[in-house]
Amino acid sequence: MNTYLACFPCFVRQAYDAARFATDDKTIHERVLRDVLHTAATMDMHLTPPEMGQFIHKRIRELTGNADPYHEVKKRFNRLALDFYPNLQRRIHSHADPLAMAVRLAIAGNIIDFGPRCDIPVETVRDSIDSALTASIDMNALVSLRSEINSAKTILFLGDNAGEIVFDKLLLEILPCEKISYVVKGAPIINDATMDDAVEVGLTDLVEVIDNGADVPGTILPQCSEAFRARFETADLVIAKGQGNYESLSDVDINIVFLLKAKCPVIAEHLHCPVGSMVIAGTRNNP
Amino acid sequence: MNTYLACFPCFVRQAYDAARFATDDKTIHERVLRDVLHTAATMDMHLTPPEMGQFIHKRIRELTGNADPYHEVKKRFNRLALDFYPNLQRRIHSHADPLAMAVRLAIAGNIIDFGPRCDIPVETVRDSIDSALTASIDMNALVSLRSEINSAKTILFLGDNAGEIVFDKLLLEILPCEKISYVVKGAPIINDATMDDAVEVGLTDLVEVIDNGADVPGTILPQCSEAFRARFETADLVIAKGQGNYESLSDVDINIVFLLKAKCPVIAEHLHCPVGSMVIAGTRNNP
Repeated sequence: MNTYLACFPCFVRQAYDAARFATDDKTIHERVLRDVLHTAATMDMHLTPPEMGQFIHKRIRELTGNADPYHEVKKRFNRLALDFYPNLQRRIHSHADPLAMAVRLAIAGNIIDFGPRCDIPVETVRDSIDSALTASIDMNALVSLRSEINSAKTILFLGDNAGEIVFDKLLLEILPCEKISYVVKGAPIINDATMDDAVEVGLTDLVEVIDNGADVPGTILPQCSEAFRARFETADLVIAKGQGNYESLSDVDINIVFLLKAKCPVIAEHLHCPVGSMVIAGTRNNP
Repeated sequence: MNTYLACFPCFVRQAYDAARFATDDKTIHERVLRDVLHTAATMDMHLTPPEMGQFIHKRIRELTGNADPYHEVKKRFNRLALDFYPNLQRRIHSHADPLAMAVRLAIAGNIIDFGPRCDIPVETVRDSIDSALTASIDMNALVSLRSEINSAKTILFLGDNAGEIVFDKLLLEILPCEKISYVVKGAPIINDATMDDAVEVGLTDLVEVIDNGADVPGTILPQCSEAFRARFETADLVIAKGQGNYESLSDVDINIVFLLKAKCPVIAEHLHCPVGSMVIAGTRNNP
């Protein structure tokens, strides 16, 4: 997905919010803002939005000297999600269609995204879970996903954020894990999950976890490691969580299913759905 | 008032909204956005926010070849406000304190501001009027304003927007108009009132109306005509409507009272009040 003009006001707001999240130093806030304004003024619209996200957060890390400003917040949301975990696990296992319930919850967990906004109250996560239980989802896409999962020999599951990774674990627990590899980011970027988070929430005990070698809030293939790209290209099915993965992979010709909450108007329009929708969207074999 | 870092995301959003308001041509949207991003990247923070507003709308006028993209919307809001006028006039004249009621309504009319947003439904204007009748206002500032008006020999009343000008007319009707001059903008800028609007709503039949010679959504003195500046410098009292006038005149050492709705968080913080407040604020003789 290209960058849209509507993304630019959001880039600048995100840069300002993220700079204030990372430091109280106003000279750094100004430096980040001016660098982002300057870069956006000449940005190639064929780049995907996560590339601007990468630039913003790289500048913040450089200027603050803090390699991982979201370290604490990632731990906090992992703990919060682990608090929810036993209850959600019971819900899934007692449900008539555990896969449907687990997919709903995996999408609900995608609310824990510090890209669009830097203040996610616990209540918002709770509301996202509650609404996921009854919100409308594309049942045809779910049926198709089920069949894809059954027929695939190798599945790559691209994770998104810390905290959200616990919701993915709930889904993975009812999937054939022996043929699945779960992918985290290669280095800290916003609150995206890295190997630390996968270990912390016990995902590494359940499934093979690999990293993609990149620090992009999405999956920009040329920036990923060769090892990851080889796995990506040969997987029978890719399941990709979140907006960043959708933005960076929606034009890639591969068998892929996106699971996400459409949190921004540009993505909602791209997906022809209202903002806030729970999305199961495929590009090739799925509708 | 200087420009704050928090203004930058808003400048970019305003530029995008205003470009889309003025034309459907996406190449112009992109050009405006990129020019604004580029200019904001190096903007002197000692400039006031209306100077960026002037830049944005000047570029839109140049690129669209339309000297007054808000022409129709100004006429529409003048008509809308004139529809409200007889009823509001009755309310003022039947009130125990007509000045208090007229000041409230003049502030309520300041909601008709296409700077912060380009979509103002009629309902928003109606709600602004309704809430103005009971909203909290600074009674000490009102008492002080009353006394300033009584003691001043010459008063300059700086108007703000089309439509809003009708609400100012309601206030002027109960003021000593012989010593008041009402000021409109020298050329079209956003939906700010110009001489056309003053004539259209009958303000010129009530009070002397002059223009300030500039096309700024506020009052940047060095850009105003010499004739206006002479009047400004010698007036005993200046009454200034709206955010743009506050942003551009809050640091000027003159006897001035600002009447506005605090519609943006930066201005609300500068004025130490919640967003949405009805503000009567002086800089010298008034609290």
